[in-house]
Amino acid sequence: MIIQLNSTISSTAKMALNEKLAQYGYSHNEVTTQFGNYIIGVGKKSFDIREIGRMEGIKDIHRVSDAYKLVSKKWKVEDTQIDFGDFKIGTGHFSIMAGPCSIESEEQIISAIEHLKANNIRIMRGGVYKPRSSPYSFRGLGMDGLKMFSSLCKENDIKIITEVMMVEQIDEMINYIDIFQVGARNSQNFNLLDALGEVDKPVLLKRGISGTIDELLQGAEYIFSHGNEKIMLCERGIRSYEMAYRNTMDINAIAMLKEKTHLPVIADPSHGIGLRKFVEPIALASIMGGADGVIMEVHHVPEKAFSDGQQTLNYQEAARTYDRMRKTFELRESF
Amino acid sequence: MIIQLNSTISSTAKMALNEKLAQYGYSHNEVTTQFGNYIIGVGKKSFDIREIGRMEGIKDIHRVSDAYKLVSKKWKVEDTQIDFGDFKIGTGHFSIMAGPCSIESEEQIISAIEHLKANNIRIMRGGVYKPRSSPYSFRGLGMDGLKMFSSLCKENDIKIITEVMMVEQIDEMINYIDIFQVGARNSQNFNLLDALGEVDKPVLLKRGISGTIDELLQGAEYIFSHGNEKIMLCERGIRSYEMAYRNTMDINAIAMLKEKTHLPVIADPSHGIGLRKFVEPIALASIMGGADGVIMEVHHVPEKAFSDGQQTLNYQEAARTYDRMRKTFELRESF
Amino acid sequence: MIIQLNSTISSTAKMALNEKLAQYGYSHNEVTTQFGNYIIGVGKKSFDIREIGRMEGIKDIHRVSDAYKLVSKKWKVEDTQIDFGDFKIGTGHFSIMAGPCSIESEEQIISAIEHLKANNIRIMRGGVYKPRSSPYSFRGLGMDGLKMFSSLCKENDIKIITEVMMVEQIDEMINYIDIFQVGARNSQNFNLLDALGEVDKPVLLKRGISGTIDELLQGAEYIFSHGNEKIMLCERGIRSYEMAYRNTMDINAIAMLKEKTHLPVIADPSHGIGLRKFVEPIALASIMGGADGVIMEVHHVPEKAFSDGQQTLNYQEAARTYDRMRKTFELRESF
Amino acid sequence: MIIQLNSTISSTAKMALNEKLAQYGYSHNEVTTQFGNYIIGVGKKSFDIREIGRMEGIKDIHRVSDAYKLVSKKWKVEDTQIDFGDFKIGTGHFSIMAGPCSIESEEQIISAIEHLKANNIRIMRGGVYKPRSSPYSFRGLGMDGLKMFSSLCKENDIKIITEVMMVEQIDEMINYIDIFQVGARNSQNFNLLDALGEVDKPVLLKRGISGTIDELLQGAEYIFSHGNEKIMLCERGIRSYEMAYRNTMDINAIAMLKEKTHLPVIADPSHGIGLRKFVEPIALASIMGGADGVIMEVHHVPEKAFSDGQQTLNYQEAARTYDRMRKTFELRESF
Repeated sequence: MIIQLNSTISSTAKMALNEKLAQYGYSHNEVTTQFGNYIIGVGKKSFDIREIGRMEGIKDIHRVSDAYKLVSKKWKVEDTQIDFGDFKIGTGHFSIMAGPCSIESEEQIISAIEHLKANNIRIMRGGVYKPRSSPYSFRGLGMDGLKMFSSLCKENDIKIITEVMMVEQIDEMINYIDIFQVGARNSQNFNLLDALGEVDKPVLLKRGISGTIDELLQGAEYIFSHGNEKIMLCERGIRSYEMAYRNTMDINAIAMLKEKTHLPVIADPSHGIGLRKFVEPIALASIMGGADGVIMEVHHVPEKAFSDGQQTLNYQEAARTYDRMRKTFELRESF
Repeated sequence: MIIQLNSTISSTAKMALNEKLAQYGYSHNEVTTQFGNYIIGVGKKSFDIREIGRMEGIKDIHRVSDAYKLVSKKWKVEDTQIDFGDFKIGTGHFSIMAGPCSIESEEQIISAIEHLKANNIRIMRGGVYKPRSSPYSFRGLGMDGLKMFSSLCKENDIKIITEVMMVEQIDEMINYIDIFQVGARNSQNFNLLDALGEVDKPVLLKRGISGTIDELLQGAEYIFSHGNEKIMLCERGIRSYEMAYRNTMDINAIAMLKEKTHLPVIADPSHGIGLRKFVEPIALASIMGGADGVIMEVHHVPEKAFSDGQQTLNYQEAARTYDRMRKTFELRESF
Repeated sequence: MIIQLNSTISSTAKMALNEKLAQYGYSHNEVTTQFGNYIIGVGKKSFDIREIGRMEGIKDIHRVSDAYKLVSKKWKVEDTQIDFGDFKIGTGHFSIMAGPCSIESEEQIISAIEHLKANNIRIMRGGVYKPRSSPYSFRGLGMDGLKMFSSLCKENDIKIITEVMMVEQIDEMINYIDIFQVGARNSQNFNLLDALGEVDKPVLLKRGISGTIDELLQGAEYIFSHGNEKIMLCERGIRSYEMAYRNTMDINAIAMLKEKTHLPVIADPSHGIGLRKFVEPIALASIMGGADGVIMEVHHVPEKAFSDGQQTLNYQEAARTYDRMRKTFELRESF
Repeated sequence: MIIQLNSTISSTAKMALNEKLAQYGYSHNEVTTQFGNYIIGVGKKSFDIREIGRMEGIKDIHRVSDAYKLVSKKWKVEDTQIDFGDFKIGTGHFSIMAGPCSIESEEQIISAIEHLKANNIRIMRGGVYKPRSSPYSFRGLGMDGLKMFSSLCKENDIKIITEVMMVEQIDEMINYIDIFQVGARNSQNFNLLDALGEVDKPVLLKRGISGTIDELLQGAEYIFSHGNEKIMLCERGIRSYEMAYRNTMDINAIAMLKEKTHLPVIADPSHGIGLRKFVEPIALASIMGGADGVIMEVHHVPEKAFSDGQQTLNYQEAARTYDRMRKTFELRESF
């Protein structure tokens, strides 16, 4: 059960509410975010919730029987949009985030920024902390890379999305990034999710390598319930028995997430199939499946890209794909 | 290696060819279909294939190193189209096959035919032999149902696709159907595939419940190598750990199949997600992924449909979906 | 609900029973096997089943709410044993079935028989019809191979288990085999299961490549409900995302099957891991998991075995494994 | 390639070695642990490694072509044992770690300690930081619980294994625990693995929820390469399509890990199947599969245990299982 509180609710009214919940055997968890105050009641007894709805200081109340609550669509009339001032992510807007797997050099960033600007793309992706299976692999340029990345993007009015891997990195990164990305391997790193709930920056949360939809939504619930409503979910392919591609893009999940949550859903076709020549059809399919945006890997010379060149488009391929994605989105919106 | 023979090749020339292959340690499998004569050579030695290409009676020769040969795109310039006279399935044409899960009654068929005609759909699906997990479930109306189904469709110039489950059924069904469907559970029923290679009717082969792309292509190779080139492949969702939907539609597979084979690829969004409200987005996504057609379940009263009502659209929902599928196909073709 | 009938039940009594079931809205399916007569009632209404239990001609009645009925443990006090005269398969007895993947030659059979006799093994496995992914692969020696196999085994008092792939093969094979094996790919070939229900020979039913426990039990229900109670289930590894081995042996399934069904459960460690050096530990683990027997591949020269040499033990390795399996079984039985 | 250095190696000798590696295009990563000094060379050129073996200060050199190096069996003659003074974990010793899912109260700990002592068990498990899917669930007693847990165990000469979830917790926990456990969800939390490489306490690393064997070994490589050789690996079941149990215990993995690595392998049958009545057969199967020990959940009243009671044994069940596990281990060791 989600109880939305008025911002002016008195402490007496709050106490009365908590007593009422206790009376019905409900636990109450108070949540304060950038945008609202909520009480999450968890319990089993069934009673007429209008009884609470009529109490002082209560804005609205909804039953949400799912394991996730605040990220559910059941209580929120309008889908979440994430506002960057002159553009938005979420319902009605199609977002593209593009860039290299890893930040490598100043030249690389400059080249990518030019490409993005030429294609009207406002968000650049690029890793500076890279999760790598082997400890002997390159693990990213770290903060030095991020500072360079940030300063070049700011000059060009490009927003940055990059992966954060541990709680300690949040503070050092926060002034240099616009969106925190949580990778598939950290999808259930609950301490990291807690901590990202305490900052006022958008978070893109990737589905776990074999995470369920429910786990993804509950992961987002961690962030929301710690105070941050600016969350996007990302389908990036799941691990299946099929070894013909790196991952199996689960477009069912995109369609279903759009039904279950008010949060924007972003598709990652680069990881979702992991093979350059199929990134475009999977991107287009994801849009028809309901995605609000696409995050994809692009590089001036994919063959020389760090770590993930196999799934990276060159600028020309990418430009064609952007165009087709936009047309596909337009057709979908016309339906 | 695939060697295409001229239809006029002399037996002396054939013998010379076989000797040449034997000389290089290659096995030879002769294949005669409705459309051509082929020798499939399987061996390891590498040599200049032009040596064979220059021999008498040889039309063309290609290396095909995949486990599947005749269904590979490597030797065939043009994608396969299946010709039904006044319409075709395959590249450049978008096909819709719709109808109920199971044939239930004359009224049901008549109603479905009207719906199809109103929507310009030429192929009706409907099961008369149903694979059911439990022996105590309804297993279809059998031949009586098929005869009724067939006579009504013929009157209305509608083609029939229906599932065949065993070799013995082929002969009794062949005059009443237009396309044989092989279900997911029979995807590696090799005797059935052999036998379907010996008839001149199109076959739609579904991917196994957790079949790989390679297994699907090798299954099709069974049919082709026994003499029947009229094959369509069907992606119908795979079994994954995600239990939020009946199956996990693998649109990666559609994109990749279109690259690997010259055969038409049909998507089955009804089984691919198994939930009525998501059939449309998955259908549209499949088209953007590269599908040449869609097979889907529709019923005048889905709530009362035999066995699979959960994933079945009503006529109104279906009509909207047909329209959007056609627009999506049109956009894709414009790319 | 399973109603066991007395063999002397009168047709009047049967009619009365069917009327009673109809009255409660239950369907009734009559099953006659080698060993008994049963009525399977399927319905939803709940009533006091003793009302039926007291009727004339009724031996016993049990509720079985699972999708599978006759193969459930809920109605049958004693686990099923399959009786071969001088030995048995099933509870209290440990069975080994060993032999090559494919029957290749007389010499091979003779050599295997000697090996089996030296190790007190009574059942030889060996395929004559082989399901192969590619149509260009060797598909077994067929009936000629089986006749040779059968005559040599009969001389040596060795029983034969071999795979049957299609309904038509049953009649031609039945006099030459002692146990029909249904392979993983035919695990849901329902027509084949129906037909095997109509013969009086034991059937070993393998779990599908990604079959669930429920599907396996329902597959067995097909056989039982068509009249044949002599069924064994076989765990042979499932398809998972882990590619370090051919299949993932699911010993959980063995433990759970022993709880759910009265049928004997056989482990196939050869396919279950697919790598020779690990066949032994997986065999021993399967026994501790509850298996009533093990079927495994052994060959005089595994390196030269047809098709599956990688998972095949030589005689010396096998002899060590038999010994350890027997000791492990003995320890388990002592618990 | 792993080069073991003499502890007395001079810096000149080291420099010469690095020059030699550079000359062949090999990267070198220096690793210093509690027990040794190593250079890990990664490169592609093939040359006679004895050339390096003969250099000053070199103890030994081995090629290791796997992605993981230091945890591979290829360079280490003897399997790793973890020494706790009066007992050891690893080859030749059978270890049991038992206790509740979560530490709940002083009474609970005292009761468990008595149970362990009565059964000669030296290591108690119990979570104080619990990874929970939902943010609204109990997340453990934290450091207060751990201090109580630790003081009671020290009095009774029982060692503690408990889960660490983030880098910041290591320092606060280190004086109160004997073994750090890394849970399945943190199996690829590389920063945590790095940090655990820098302490001198044993680490039990669980396989990811759908982690591969290779990923598990590379995770362990992170710990080893940061300086800590005291590592155990833990198979705890993988995520598969089969929903009849919580996870699918992968005993193949145990058998294969024992072949690939010198590290001890521990089985977790409680999570591996997740159902109380099957914990015992899966524990015994794991031992036959090659496990060096078992970690399992036990509670004085499983029905009231926090969070995971479904898979928790009571003391009587557990005592029977310990006894049978020890007998099974004894039989295996006799082979």
